[in-house]
Amino acid sequence: MADAPYQLILLRHGESEWNAKNLFTGWVDVNLNAKGEEEAVRGGELLRDEGLLPDVVHTSVLRRAIRTAALALDAADRHWIPVRRSWRLNERHYGALQGKDKAQTLAEFGEEQFARWRRSYDTPPPRLADDSEFSQVNDARYAVIPPELRPRTECLKDVVERMLPYWYDAIVPDLLTGRTVLVVAHGNSLRGLVKHLDGISDADIAGLNIPTGIPLRYELDSEFHPVTKGGTYLDPQAAAAAIEAVKNQGRK
Amino acid sequence: MADAPYQLILLRHGESEWNAKNLFTGWVDVNLNAKGEEEAVRGGELLRDEGLLPDVVHTSVLRRAIRTAALALDAADRHWIPVRRSWRLNERHYGALQGKDKAQTLAEFGEEQFARWRRSYDTPPPRLADDSEFSQVNDARYAVIPPELRPRTECLKDVVERMLPYWYDAIVPDLLTGRTVLVVAHGNSLRGLVKHLDGISDADIAGLNIPTGIPLRYELDSEFHPVTKGGTYLDPQAAAAAIEAVKNQGRK
Repeated sequence: MADAPYQLILLRHGESEWNAKNLFTGWVDVNLNAKGEEEAVRGGELLRDEGLLPDVVHTSVLRRAIRTAALALDAADRHWIPVRRSWRLNERHYGALQGKDKAQTLAEFGEEQFARWRRSYDTPPPRLADDSEFSQVNDARYAVIPPELRPRTECLKDVVERMLPYWYDAIVPDLLTGRTVLVVAHGNSLRGLVKHLDGISDADIAGLNIPTGIPLRYELDSEFHPVTKGGTYLDPQAAAAAIEAVKNQGRK
Repeated sequence: MADAPYQLILLRHGESEWNAKNLFTGWVDVNLNAKGEEEAVRGGELLRDEGLLPDVVHTSVLRRAIRTAALALDAADRHWIPVRRSWRLNERHYGALQGKDKAQTLAEFGEEQFARWRRSYDTPPPRLADDSEFSQVNDARYAVIPPELRPRTECLKDVVERMLPYWYDAIVPDLLTGRTVLVVAHGNSLRGLVKHLDGISDADIAGLNIPTGIPLRYELDSEFHPVTKGGTYLDPQAAAAAIEAVKNQGRK
């Protein structure tokens, strides 16, 4: 253990109602569908079978991550551990794309613009209007964010900048106490964290996809650098297959 | 609001697999059954319909309370609020009765002894042996309790003594910040809290039953005394009917 004092587990929520419909979701608080629930339970079973038992869990404030955490921890018999939640672990705010069909957006704006919105590091989609049905500016759970800071759109760079304070102030302190920390979050907030941990460049992060429902274990050294770059998926074959599937999103 | 600055909501978990089987449960970590899940959802709907929205939730470390909280909060669209858990909110440890059939225990030990174990304030059942399949002495979730303090049995007085520090140190501070606090716990940990809040005598607490799944609202004044003694159930008729049913437990 001397060379890997810290145990971190990342888990991306399972399929949601809008993943299945191929809609941009972002901060819209959709639920898991039946497949997503199964993925969450399977994620917990992988933790249990590996004997990799979280001592504390961090989630976003979005239902699909909260329920994934509850289902996975229940399956691993760790339902009783302390829970912490923060909007800083939320999915990227998808701006005016929230609620839009991915394939339709691709057809409407073309391959280049579509790819830029989905994968460029620093180009956010257009801002979401505050009176949109898909806006969260008046949602009580975000009352802790000063109104002028509540995102109307985000690029991945914005996600990294609002997520990192939570990494430093909430997750690292839990790791420092020797606890195995589980973070249940979203494709882009986890990509942002992995970018930071593995030192991935702004350009290369575009090519990184994180599959849903498969725990990704990072053993970290005393300086919080990964012992194994990229971490280790608890089910590497399923992870490889799922990464391929994510790459093809929006192409259906 | 001047005369009732603090809002507290108590919720007893819904029916568990062992409630339905009429077994003493205590610290054994059984799950809700389908009826208990429905009760939890209904409890959340009552909160939602009343517009009584919790800002923070406290639960025991037992699955039936944790799941009740998750299901109720999901139904009330408050799944995202901060969560705190403590063994100090656990059900009474039922000692050697854990896992035993209530009707059988009544037949074996007689009405008087049965009533004393169930309802006397300061007579605990016999201690549970550490090597019993129903013991929790080696359960990782109780590692925070020094081994010599881990209960082997408890009377209601013991529950009050180990629950009150949590009331003072964790729940009251949340109330002091002006938050509406939801406590999801068990028949006896909630009876202990109600005894304290309403100033019920050691003798009179024997006659108090708290129904499952129906939120009990306490408005507290600046000295944390209930504005309305006994609080107010969000569904008073269902509560009255359920209280009758609890009284007849063990008599089936």
